[in-house]
Amino acid sequence: MTSHAETAPLVELPFGDRLAEAVERKRSQLVVGLDPRPDLLPVEVRGDVARFCCGVIDAVAPHAVAVKPQLAFFEALGLEGLTVCQEVCAYARAAGLLVILDGKRGDIGSTARAYAAAYLEPGADASRPFGDALTVNPYLGRDSVDPYLAACRRHGVGIFCVVKTSNAGGGEVQDLALTDGRPVWHHVALLVAEWGADLVGRRGLSSVGAVIGATHPTAVREARRILPQAVLLLPGVGAQGATPADVAPAFTSGPASALVPVSRSVMHAYRAGDAADWRTAAGAEAARVKSEVWAASGW
Amino acid sequence: MTSHAETAPLVELPFGDRLAEAVERKRSQLVVGLDPRPDLLPVEVRGDVARFCCGVIDAVAPHAVAVKPQLAFFEALGLEGLTVCQEVCAYARAAGLLVILDGKRGDIGSTARAYAAAYLEPGADASRPFGDALTVNPYLGRDSVDPYLAACRRHGVGIFCVVKTSNAGGGEVQDLALTDGRPVWHHVALLVAEWGADLVGRRGLSSVGAVIGATHPTAVREARRILPQAVLLLPGVGAQGATPADVAPAFTSGPASALVPVSRSVMHAYRAGDAADWRTAAGAEAARVKSEVWAASGW
Repeated sequence: MTSHAETAPLVELPFGDRLAEAVERKRSQLVVGLDPRPDLLPVEVRGDVARFCCGVIDAVAPHAVAVKPQLAFFEALGLEGLTVCQEVCAYARAAGLLVILDGKRGDIGSTARAYAAAYLEPGADASRPFGDALTVNPYLGRDSVDPYLAACRRHGVGIFCVVKTSNAGGGEVQDLALTDGRPVWHHVALLVAEWGADLVGRRGLSSVGAVIGATHPTAVREARRILPQAVLLLPGVGAQGATPADVAPAFTSGPASALVPVSRSVMHAYRAGDAADWRTAAGAEAARVKSEVWAASGW
Repeated sequence: MTSHAETAPLVELPFGDRLAEAVERKRSQLVVGLDPRPDLLPVEVRGDVARFCCGVIDAVAPHAVAVKPQLAFFEALGLEGLTVCQEVCAYARAAGLLVILDGKRGDIGSTARAYAAAYLEPGADASRPFGDALTVNPYLGRDSVDPYLAACRRHGVGIFCVVKTSNAGGGEVQDLALTDGRPVWHHVALLVAEWGADLVGRRGLSSVGAVIGATHPTAVREARRILPQAVLLLPGVGAQGATPADVAPAFTSGPASALVPVSRSVMHAYRAGDAADWRTAAGAEAARVKSEVWAASGW
């Protein structure tokens, strides 16, 4: 894990470029979500969340381009949760995976600066979970996102703004019709395009991406049109019912222009079906989804 | 600090009733925000955030009805941050203050369940920061809020949904005009009213409140009309420029129907002006704001 003094900023390639390189090298747009629930761990790991997550990372590292630890599940572990998360993030980076921290943070500027410091700044002490990217909520507008954009510029990290979510209730706010006839989320997508416009890397992808639920295939196509340079993070494939075919239209801006996060169906693959070891089962499911998505992406 | 086994749910009074009782007893609608920045601590505490926060709590406990730890600032402390936050929350509760955790969490149902477990469920081990209430983001709709509503019902806790924020950029999404001519945030306020309708306590206040920026006095009045039974949490007084007079119209639903959070101007009162001890300065500023707000509230 890279460790830098705060005064010596990490000058890495922009997130979009790092992602594009990794996707093409691995021929994978798969992101494995890490949503560890202590009550669903294999008996063998005896409640050790870090051991479970690191085992899943070992199994999926050849197939995935990134992992996506869901902060809520680590926060729910209590005081040791953040330590576990930091350990898991460091392990994933050492295994050559990008880390997308799923926190959906969103607050006014002074508070957003604290979140950026917490999750997007490589610290001198390496004692914090450090992500290559963080999911953020755009409801508070531009000044609430600025501190993350500053981190993107300074540290080569990225963000994914929640735009159109995969859950049933998402439409209650996101689909409200504006006076121009478009839904709220279209307008949010336009804001995201604006926020990311000066963070486009050499590979044509911005470090400011968008979360679009794969459970809404029409929305995926519309988002691709509104956000030609954004990386679309497309939850909903697998447990929530969407298929690789549903997300295929998202890849027209390049092989790395969309990512498919899969959580439960990989993490808990061992619970469905034959008596395979949990790591083997996770690896096999990751390999399967990766291939299906790559094929569907047309690259 | 109350400690219960997870299987023995805490059956307390609803949050709205507990708040109403505390506000009337203390004749205070003041909430002291705890946004600790290590670089702004008094020299005397030598970077010890817990000591600083507990000192502020001692000073403001006679004047405030609640504290509002901003999770971002604790998360930015690194691995010990959550421990500090837990310590501060427990200390505040022991001092007779309610704890409103400011996290603005918002995610799909399965993840929201983890956040509710992390922050709104009194754990058997008391090892987590436990809030009487949590701020949440409504952009993902009803099913993303349901787990918090379940916690409200089960544990007598509350939530405050972000509706119309105090920052300049908030309007970029929240003020977008819908086809009926109303801004997005009006519709979100209507959703909040719906979510909280069956959580109204004996004192007429729902456990589901709303965050409305005091920097928008017109919005405060409109929110009061749309949400007659919600407790309005009104940031923006003090450092952000709003005055007690700006929030006066929020109190027409009762003395506890609105709360005024003040962070920097209390925490850092010692930095402005004469050489008072930092605790004395915080206490004096809290007493001053409390009295001004109580007078403006008309109760």
